[in-house]
Amino acid sequence: MNPLISIIMGSTSDLPVMEKAAQFLNEMEIPFEINALSAHRTPEEVEKFAKGARERGIRVIIAAAGMAAHLPGVIASMTTLPVIGVPIKASLDGLDALLAIVQMPPGIPVATVGINGSLNAAILALQMIATGDESAQQKLAAYKENLKKKIRQANEELANLSYKYKTN
Amino acid sequence: MNPLISIIMGSTSDLPVMEKAAQFLNEMEIPFEINALSAHRTPEEVEKFAKGARERGIRVIIAAAGMAAHLPGVIASMTTLPVIGVPIKASLDGLDALLAIVQMPPGIPVATVGINGSLNAAILALQMIATGDESAQQKLAAYKENLKKKIRQANEELANLSYKYKTN
Amino acid sequence: MNPLISIIMGSTSDLPVMEKAAQFLNEMEIPFEINALSAHRTPEEVEKFAKGARERGIRVIIAAAGMAAHLPGVIASMTTLPVIGVPIKASLDGLDALLAIVQMPPGIPVATVGINGSLNAAILALQMIATGDESAQQKLAAYKENLKKKIRQANEELANLSYKYKTN
Amino acid sequence: MNPLISIIMGSTSDLPVMEKAAQFLNEMEIPFEINALSAHRTPEEVEKFAKGARERGIRVIIAAAGMAAHLPGVIASMTTLPVIGVPIKASLDGLDALLAIVQMPPGIPVATVGINGSLNAAILALQMIATGDESAQQKLAAYKENLKKKIRQANEELANLSYKYKTN
Amino acid sequence: MNPLISIIMGSTSDLPVMEKAAQFLNEMEIPFEINALSAHRTPEEVEKFAKGARERGIRVIIAAAGMAAHLPGVIASMTTLPVIGVPIKASLDGLDALLAIVQMPPGIPVATVGINGSLNAAILALQMIATGDESAQQKLAAYKENLKKKIRQANEELANLSYKYKTN
Amino acid sequence: MNPLISIIMGSTSDLPVMEKAAQFLNEMEIPFEINALSAHRTPEEVEKFAKGARERGIRVIIAAAGMAAHLPGVIASMTTLPVIGVPIKASLDGLDALLAIVQMPPGIPVATVGINGSLNAAILALQMIATGDESAQQKLAAYKENLKKKIRQANEELANLSYKYKTN
Amino acid sequence: MNPLISIIMGSTSDLPVMEKAAQFLNEMEIPFEINALSAHRTPEEVEKFAKGARERGIRVIIAAAGMAAHLPGVIASMTTLPVIGVPIKASLDGLDALLAIVQMPPGIPVATVGINGSLNAAILALQMIATGDESAQQKLAAYKENLKKKIRQANEELANLSYKYKTN
Amino acid sequence: MNPLISIIMGSTSDLPVMEKAAQFLNEMEIPFEINALSAHRTPEEVEKFAKGARERGIRVIIAAAGMAAHLPGVIASMTTLPVIGVPIKASLDGLDALLAIVQMPPGIPVATVGINGSLNAAILALQMIATGDESAQQKLAAYKENLKKKIRQANEELANLSYKYKTN
Repeated sequence: MNPLISIIMGSTSDLPVMEKAAQFLNEMEIPFEINALSAHRTPEEVEKFAKGARERGIRVIIAAAGMAAHLPGVIASMTTLPVIGVPIKASLDGLDALLAIVQMPPGIPVATVGINGSLNAAILALQMIATGDESAQQKLAAYKENLKKKIRQANEELANLSYKYKTN
Repeated sequence: MNPLISIIMGSTSDLPVMEKAAQFLNEMEIPFEINALSAHRTPEEVEKFAKGARERGIRVIIAAAGMAAHLPGVIASMTTLPVIGVPIKASLDGLDALLAIVQMPPGIPVATVGINGSLNAAILALQMIATGDESAQQKLAAYKENLKKKIRQANEELANLSYKYKTN
Repeated sequence: MNPLISIIMGSTSDLPVMEKAAQFLNEMEIPFEINALSAHRTPEEVEKFAKGARERGIRVIIAAAGMAAHLPGVIASMTTLPVIGVPIKASLDGLDALLAIVQMPPGIPVATVGINGSLNAAILALQMIATGDESAQQKLAAYKENLKKKIRQANEELANLSYKYKTN
Repeated sequence: MNPLISIIMGSTSDLPVMEKAAQFLNEMEIPFEINALSAHRTPEEVEKFAKGARERGIRVIIAAAGMAAHLPGVIASMTTLPVIGVPIKASLDGLDALLAIVQMPPGIPVATVGINGSLNAAILALQMIATGDESAQQKLAAYKENLKKKIRQANEELANLSYKYKTN
Repeated sequence: MNPLISIIMGSTSDLPVMEKAAQFLNEMEIPFEINALSAHRTPEEVEKFAKGARERGIRVIIAAAGMAAHLPGVIASMTTLPVIGVPIKASLDGLDALLAIVQMPPGIPVATVGINGSLNAAILALQMIATGDESAQQKLAAYKENLKKKIRQANEELANLSYKYKTN
Repeated sequence: MNPLISIIMGSTSDLPVMEKAAQFLNEMEIPFEINALSAHRTPEEVEKFAKGARERGIRVIIAAAGMAAHLPGVIASMTTLPVIGVPIKASLDGLDALLAIVQMPPGIPVATVGINGSLNAAILALQMIATGDESAQQKLAAYKENLKKKIRQANEELANLSYKYKTN
Repeated sequence: MNPLISIIMGSTSDLPVMEKAAQFLNEMEIPFEINALSAHRTPEEVEKFAKGARERGIRVIIAAAGMAAHLPGVIASMTTLPVIGVPIKASLDGLDALLAIVQMPPGIPVATVGINGSLNAAILALQMIATGDESAQQKLAAYKENLKKKIRQANEELANLSYKYKTN
Repeated sequence: MNPLISIIMGSTSDLPVMEKAAQFLNEMEIPFEINALSAHRTPEEVEKFAKGARERGIRVIIAAAGMAAHLPGVIASMTTLPVIGVPIKASLDGLDALLAIVQMPPGIPVATVGINGSLNAAILALQMIATGDESAQQKLAAYKENLKKKIRQANEELANLSYKYKTN
């Protein structure tokens, strides 16, 4: 089964953040791959990866990087696949990575999620695939329903907190 | 021909920024619609819009808003369609809108582009559709090739600048 | 006794911050309720809550949220009750939540307090009720007098610090 | 007819921003007063004003200031009335005034609105009064309905924009 | 011996930061006093303190506060003595306190030092006094000479670090 | 008559900002001098100036600079006179200059005023001199009284604004 | 005469900023070239340029870019030549470009100058070449001497300003 | 063997950050020296150091400082050698030091690297020397090749991570 989504990290030290993306795709039973490639340290591998991704059947690329985070933009410049950028918090609370990813020049977009937002990157990747894939769409609908249940349960636990004048 | 992409603005004053998205989709011959709906002033319309979009055939939503920009996130909470958020520069150089759009909680992503980045939002929307649509993919490849030509031409004009010790 | 003030959190993980609000209202003997509702994960519950609050006798809503904190604004869009927003520090030192709450567009205000400022939110809620309620006003006056006493006591303890050339 | 709301500005140069608050209160037929008092240049007047406001029948104070904006907090320290703070954009895009107003210490809240958000300050003041005043509540409901109408009209105008592939 | 310098803190929790100021003044044998007074919680005490300081022989006031740090500015508005402001790091890395202290409006200066910069506040206070006091001037000269000695010693220790190609 | 206060600018382009300081000192009849010296372009002149200032009778130095504003700190490192730093707004809204001036390391304070706050720098300089000079003190008291009069007059003009429901 | 320094801009719209670099190199009689190449729109040209620069005799590369400014870092990843990065002010006052250029990961430095600091980039390039080139060194010494003269002249003009109590 | 590169720190407390620079130069067998000199506490030593560096054979200076980081700029003002500035994270996440180093005025550049970026400073210093030194150039090429190997190895370890639907 060929991977549909490719997760790229600028450094293996980003793995603890990116694992949530991998777990979500696993749970949704979406085939994916995960690699570490540095825009700055292995530019040739990045180029080879980016230019070959579509032909290998990849439909969405998730790229994570910190600091002067160029990886998502560099990949986006070399493919017409949608690229999702995940700013990693490594310095300045992640603001440097966020701006270095989201503020792309006209012509080359990167779909940016929040700082360390790897789960949202994976959900977004599935949403993109679901634009043309009904089974992916059903998985998303089920996931969304499940989210609601969890917060309803959390709220029920709140009801047991004891404050004298609390009335619900 | 039903619209595939829906552009929503928080205010009609955002139109000058969003026109670049409309022009791109026009040029690419992608059917789209464009509306102004405020997350804060017309919450019912937003809800009706967001919940009905998929059934009407919309595949991607582009939502633009400034300041405490809730519109993209509010729509994303009510649909499984991918939502692209465009932060509008209205105060604080647009940093407030950027953070209010991109920093979504786990479970509800918004694919954020740069401040006032409406052209990139439209390209990204087409990239999403192209994950399952070969004709959209061909349009993107042609567009990307064209971008390169333009910057090559610009560079040739630079060659005519006269500096005494300039050598190219 | 019906609750007059309703505290809503975007996530149950905000409870440790919001407990100071609950304790203050308890101490002031003001009936209140406390719930977790997510603008993004349970939009229907939020809508039902916001639209029904006034009829149930709620006079002020306190809404706390972090990151792209939409909850206070979303509630404010669906009620004419005053909504107090508490930015929760979850990322970027809470600056993202502060801007996402305070920078509301014209027409829909949110009364914003400082980052993690749950105690001040509760005091402010009581001040709002006291605009038309003499007993609430008396509670506030007593509370304010008490604050002064505490800082005077703290100052007296300072007087015992021993520095050679300190003269008070 | 005694004023119910008192608008205070740190400088008469803030008047162009604060006029929207005055106009709203005028439109809503709420008696108000408007004065310039500087926390730093006329501290005695500020004290006299703040301590006497409740007895004169004032129910809410709106205080606007820029830069190191102390006026709202200083007034809040001298009254139990709710104080709404309006950060004026005078330097650093208004971020200095926003932080100097919103980040109040525990015990003394200021209900902060967005930068230059004078209209929202006035709406919020009316919402506070409406917690104990049915006629104020009816004015707010009518105002909110009107807001919706305006954005619906604006949207209808959008429908007439001509794009080739636009479909609504 | 009357105090020449008065140190005021917004809260006794600021004492660990302000102790460096007290220790310096002790070391320099300058009589001082130290108190906790809150601009927001004890405005009357602050007023009494500020207005009486000059007559009691105080020549410089050092005022420390965090968050929406109004204390230095409020004191400065009520005296012609020079007021040194120390921004305390309590939230947002101290940036809120820095801006709330340094960005004073024309007419009422506060001499601001760095975030948590209590030692520098005390040195600056002594420099101010030394503008009209030769003995204070001599203390400063001796202190400055001593600073140089310390960093020269530290550098000599560096000389013993062993790196193969290090040559000094 | 020897100058008591020396105003130094990093560049003659800072003169329009610094003129308010010169005008204030003129009005107060305080002898002063004004020069342009760059910490980076004329380091020897800066050193000569800083080391000789006290002997020439200067009591306070006001140093203004923009961007990576080193001038105030460099001068402070070479004299025991108090140095007042004025951050000039030249880029990044003046935030770079503010931080480069105020965040001095322990041992070498710079008394920082607000961005472009040249008037406050001059008032502060006079306050410093007044710690040991009764005539300077009287000038300050008169100036402060005058400030109050001006804002009272401004307020009287406000009283003539016509709003239907305005009541003062 | 082969170029020693190569100036690359992300867009021809950066030319007005970069002209100061070209003028300086002209004045110093250093052969250079100037081109527009976009890291995102023409990645292949950038790669070809970066990999061939050293062999063509280029000794230093100056790369300017705005927003998510990847160009300097991308070039630095493909050559061992020193790369000087010039952040262009295009949005967010240039802070996005500054962070996207300066915060490079360990292993791949970019020598960053200030926002729009093209003149300093050219001086720095000459300083780099001068580490192994005596004639370049002499040009720099002459330039530095000239800078001092200019500011001395400017200061002499200040001496003619008339303030009554100004004394120099 | 004379040192070619001189590392200067504003404080010996910066040594843990700067050791990576020393280790790199050691590994590359480049003779260097390392000292602590404070722009503010030992201005004379700094001047003597900066003015004598070139004659002693130093070709590049690396200067590290935190907070209002003047050391790199002060040294750059006194030499024509290239100066590399390393912003040290001591407060405000290092943003103050970054701005105080990078935003130099026209005429006096500092080659700035990222916050705490001491390794990159050392690599950049070697790149500068390599503009006129073939053996340094060969060391850089070998180092760059080695960087690639390391990230390739890290990627191979990723391949062993077990996710059910992971496919590479």
